[in-house]
Amino acid sequence: MHPSVILTIGTELTRGELVNSNAAWLGERLTALGFDVVSHLTIADDRARIVRTLRSLAREAKVVVVTGGLGPTTDDLTSECAAEALGVPMQRSEASLAAIVARFERLGRPMSPSNAKQADFPEGADVLPNAQGTAPGFGMVLDGCQFFFMPGVPREMKAMFEGEVVPRIAPLGRALSHQIHLHCFGLPESQVGERLAGLEAATPGLTLGYRAHFPEIEVKVLVRADDLATAKTRAAEVAREVRARLGEAVFGEGDDTFAAVVARSLLEKKLTLAVAESCTGGLVGHLLTREAGASAYLLADAVTYANEAKTRFAGVDPGLIAAHGAVSEEVARAMAEGIRERAGADVALSLTGVAGPSGGSPEKPVGTVFLAVATAKGTRVKKVFFAHERPMVQMFAAFAGLDLVRREVEAAAL
Amino acid sequence: MHPSVILTIGTELTRGELVNSNAAWLGERLTALGFDVVSHLTIADDRARIVRTLRSLAREAKVVVVTGGLGPTTDDLTSECAAEALGVPMQRSEASLAAIVARFERLGRPMSPSNAKQADFPEGADVLPNAQGTAPGFGMVLDGCQFFFMPGVPREMKAMFEGEVVPRIAPLGRALSHQIHLHCFGLPESQVGERLAGLEAATPGLTLGYRAHFPEIEVKVLVRADDLATAKTRAAEVAREVRARLGEAVFGEGDDTFAAVVARSLLEKKLTLAVAESCTGGLVGHLLTREAGASAYLLADAVTYANEAKTRFAGVDPGLIAAHGAVSEEVARAMAEGIRERAGADVALSLTGVAGPSGGSPEKPVGTVFLAVATAKGTRVKKVFFAHERPMVQMFAAFAGLDLVRREVEAAAL
Repeated sequence: MHPSVILTIGTELTRGELVNSNAAWLGERLTALGFDVVSHLTIADDRARIVRTLRSLAREAKVVVVTGGLGPTTDDLTSECAAEALGVPMQRSEASLAAIVARFERLGRPMSPSNAKQADFPEGADVLPNAQGTAPGFGMVLDGCQFFFMPGVPREMKAMFEGEVVPRIAPLGRALSHQIHLHCFGLPESQVGERLAGLEAATPGLTLGYRAHFPEIEVKVLVRADDLATAKTRAAEVAREVRARLGEAVFGEGDDTFAAVVARSLLEKKLTLAVAESCTGGLVGHLLTREAGASAYLLADAVTYANEAKTRFAGVDPGLIAAHGAVSEEVARAMAEGIRERAGADVALSLTGVAGPSGGSPEKPVGTVFLAVATAKGTRVKKVFFAHERPMVQMFAAFAGLDLVRREVEAAAL
Repeated sequence: MHPSVILTIGTELTRGELVNSNAAWLGERLTALGFDVVSHLTIADDRARIVRTLRSLAREAKVVVVTGGLGPTTDDLTSECAAEALGVPMQRSEASLAAIVARFERLGRPMSPSNAKQADFPEGADVLPNAQGTAPGFGMVLDGCQFFFMPGVPREMKAMFEGEVVPRIAPLGRALSHQIHLHCFGLPESQVGERLAGLEAATPGLTLGYRAHFPEIEVKVLVRADDLATAKTRAAEVAREVRARLGEAVFGEGDDTFAAVVARSLLEKKLTLAVAESCTGGLVGHLLTREAGASAYLLADAVTYANEAKTRFAGVDPGLIAAHGAVSEEVARAMAEGIRERAGADVALSLTGVAGPSGGSPEKPVGTVFLAVATAKGTRVKKVFFAHERPMVQMFAAFAGLDLVRREVEAAAL
C-alpha cells in the first residue's frame, strides 16, 4: 500500500483552539481508498517550517493531503511555501480569478483585493476548483510525491476531496482490506485481549485492534489480502472465531449500538418495555430514545430519584425501603414489578444503586447497583459493582441493565 | 518560548476512527503554560516509526508530550519503543505493579497477566502515577529533550497532565496569559461574533475564541500581557464587557455546566424540581443527575413516552391529548402541572415535541417542542423550533427547558 500523510496547517490547530476533525475525516477516507496513512502532522503558520515540512514529507510518502492556509489573510502562507519548496515562482491563474470574481458577484458581496491573491499558485500547479467557497486548491508533484492542497473549512475541503482529489488518487490506492467491528460488553479489555491471543499469528494479513469506548470494547478485525474477496472471507472467518471466544460478551457488529440491539430483540418478540431508574437518573431512557423508533416498544421510564417517588411512581412499599434501604435487592425487585404493572409493559427494568461520590457505606460502597428485570415469567435481580467516578458508574449500570434485558428477552420464551 | 511538540500514537487515530481531541486539549494547555507548540504529530502503532519519531523529535523540541500505546494489549508499543530510542532495557517497577494489583483488588476485578506489562518502563524512567486508571505514565530525557508519556484515555491523560506533568514543566514555560471561558446558550454563533465585534481591536493582547459545543457556545477570552497580573485584570474586564453585550445568553463561566447552574439557582431558593419529559426521553434527567448533588433538589422525572404514560404518570387528561395532540401547548401545560402535583415539587418542567426523523406534520414539523414550567405562581409555556437531526433536537430541547427553569426561578419570587 502506498504510504500517505495528512498535513494540516494552522496556528489555531497547534494551539488547540480548534479540534482537528479534518485529519480524522481524511484518515478514514484515505484508509478506505486503500492507502496506508502513516502519520498526521499539524504545524503552525510558520513559513520556514512549512517549506521544510513539505520537502521532508515528499521523501516519506507517495501522497500528501494538505489542508489550511489558503485563505486571503497574511497568515495564509501555504501556496507561497509550496512554490518555495518546488523552487518555482508564483503565477496568477486568470481562470481562477474569473471564478472568484464571479462568485462574489453571485453572492452580491464586495470582493477585496486580498481575495485576488487566492488565484495565485505555484507555476505548473494543477488547480482544483472550489465549488463551496472562494479558495481554490491545487495539486503538485515534488520528488515523485503527489501533494494536494485544500482549504481548511471542512465543508469546502470535503467537497474538494471527493470531487477533485479522489479521481486523481483512486488509481493509486488498493482497497484490498476488509474490516469488521464487533462490540463487546462485560469483559475487561485485558481479558478480551487474552482470549483472542494467538489469532493474529494464525491468520495471514490479520490486524486486531481494540478500542475502549467505555463501557464497551470494540474489537476491530482488519484483514489485508491480495484480493478483496479473500480479505472479506478471511475477515468473516475471524469474526466468527472472535464471537466464539468472547461468547455472550459480543452484543453487536458494525453500526450496532446497545440500544439498537435491545430494541431489536424486543421488537422481534413484539414486547413492550418500561423502566424505573434511580441512580442512573434518566440515562437508560436517554440511551434508548436517542435513536429513532423507541416509541415502538418503550412505554415509560420513571426516574424515581427520591424515595417518595419510588412509592408514588413505581408503587414501592415505603416499609420495604425502610427495612432494606433504597439500594437493595428487595427495592430493585419491587421497582421492576411496580413499573411493569403501572405502565402495562411486558418487560420492566429497574436500577437502584450508589452512583457516588457520596452515599456509600461499608455494606453498599459507591458503585453498588441492583438491577432487576421483571417479565410475565418472574423477576431476575442482579447485583453489580463498579467502583469509579459517578458518570462511569451510571454508564456502566445503564449498560449492565440493558445487557440484562437483552439476555432475559433472548433466553426466555416470552 | 520553549518549542514543544504533541505526539499522539495510535492506528485508530491515523485511520481516522477517532477524532484527536487529546491533541487539541494539550495544545491549549501547553500554550496557556507559555510553551510554543510548533507541531502535533500522530503516528500509527508501528515500532520502527515510533522509535524513529522519538529520536527526531528529541532534536526538534525541548518538551514532547506523548499519548497512547500504554495499554495492556499487543498493539501497545510505546514503552518498549521509548526504551529502544533511549538505548536502555525495560525494567519492572515493583511500586507500580503493587499499585496496579491494589487497584484491581479495590475494584474487585481479576487482574490479568497482561496488566503486569503496564508496570514495565525504560530503565531510569520517572514513573507518573495514574490516579484514574491502570496504565501509569513516565517521563524521560533524550538528547536534552524532556518526554512525558501518558495514556490515551482522555480522562486519565488530563488528570495525569495536570497532576504530574504540569509541576515538572511549569518552570520552563512563561505563563503570561490569562484565559476566561464564558458559556452561552440561545444565540447563534454568528450573532455572538457580531455582538463582540471591535473588542479585540480595542484591547491590547486580547484574542477572542469561539467554540461551538452544541448547543452551547463557549467564548474564550485570552489576554497576553507583560505580566500575569495585568493579563488577569484585563481578562476580567473583557469578561464583564462580554457579559454586558451578550446579556442573559451567558449562563456560566469556567467549569460551569447548565445543570450545575440550574441546580445552584434551585438550591439557593431551597426549591425542589420534578420533570415530565417525552421527546427528550430521559436526557433532562441524565443531564441533571450526571453531576453529584441532584438528590438535594430533584424528586422525580417521568419519561412519559407513550400517551398512556402521560396520563398514568403525569395525570394528563386523555381528552386533552385527543383534542390537541401529544405535542401541544395544552399537553405541555398539563404535564408540568400534573407532575408538579404528583411529585410534590415546587417547580416542574415538561417537554413534549417531535424529535424526528418521523412524526412531523405541516403544523408541527420535526423540531417543534413545547416546554412548560409550572410553579406556585402559575405555568409558563414556550414553543421552540430547531430543525435538525434527532439527537440535536433532543439536546437543544433539553437545554431550552433547563434555560426556562433557570430564568423562571431567577425572575420569580418563589
